[in-house]
Amino acid sequence: MNQKSKDVFKVYPIGYVRNTGERFYIELDKKVIPAMKQLEHFSHLQMLCWFHEQDNKEGRQMLKDIPPYKGAPETGVFASRSPARPNPISLGTVVMVHVDTKIGVIDLAYTDAHDGTPVIDLKPYMPICDRARKVRMPEWLSHWPEWIPEGDFDPEEYGFIMEEY
Amino acid sequence: MNQKSKDVFKVYPIGYVRNTGERFYIELDKKVIPAMKQLEHFSHLQMLCWFHEQDNKEGRQMLKDIPPYKGAPETGVFASRSPARPNPISLGTVVMVHVDTKIGVIDLAYTDAHDGTPVIDLKPYMPICDRARKVRMPEWLSHWPEWIPEGDFDPEEYGFIMEEY
Repeated sequence: MNQKSKDVFKVYPIGYVRNTGERFYIELDKKVIPAMKQLEHFSHLQMLCWFHEQDNKEGRQMLKDIPPYKGAPETGVFASRSPARPNPISLGTVVMVHVDTKIGVIDLAYTDAHDGTPVIDLKPYMPICDRARKVRMPEWLSHWPEWIPEGDFDPEEYGFIMEEY
Repeated sequence: MNQKSKDVFKVYPIGYVRNTGERFYIELDKKVIPAMKQLEHFSHLQMLCWFHEQDNKEGRQMLKDIPPYKGAPETGVFASRSPARPNPISLGTVVMVHVDTKIGVIDLAYTDAHDGTPVIDLKPYMPICDRARKVRMPEWLSHWPEWIPEGDFDPEEYGFIMEEY
């Protein structure tokens, strides 16, 4: 759009997700360890990653798709959490279970990010910034939980179609 | 870190924030209008922008700072919402007041993003992904509101130091 349409911004990994299937952690680049200071006082992070598996022409040109939810219509990627999108950035709220500022490792309760996924930013979860009260959702998602699940959770009970994920 | 430390990812604007001081809106690139489909069924967006004013060597090397909150200690940028950080990406939850899929314009109730700020991604706000229940915060932030403010809000009442912002 207009004069700025050729802007391009450079994003570098600040670390990588490690996911063994049992242990979930962020391994930060040693250079950015000072940026962890005070992190242990927070419980949750907003973790931004790069969906590197979607960083290709096909993924970045994907503008619409049918989400893997029962009854979902064709939906634009800005109205879905699709990993394929013009800038393949993921956003996930994660629970920190241990912060080691000596070696730059943050253990998480869980993440579905794949092993080796580049992490591009971390922000503390702050209710004043992140917790919205009166939220409206489309009808086909209106029965989903009101909070991030804290324990066992079976998305298939809510109509999530696992094989299409 | 390790073999991947030279990765660099390319991010393109999908549009720009327009902020007249009275009207706040996102003007999307015409090419990505199809990605808006179904957006009108949601109330809130997770808006990711590029803090273009911090996209310089000094801003990107900033790893610690003293946040503009009364009593805040020196804090790493991954434990704060500082605009200066290795990848100057902003994350803000915004309320949509009107969605025009013909011209690619999304009117917002409010944003503090400056006029001309590049928008790099939009995601629907979904409680199952974004609304965390049991959140722990550092002592110096523990008196802040439990929700994103919906009406008039004076951050100075909470110890926000406006002149340092």
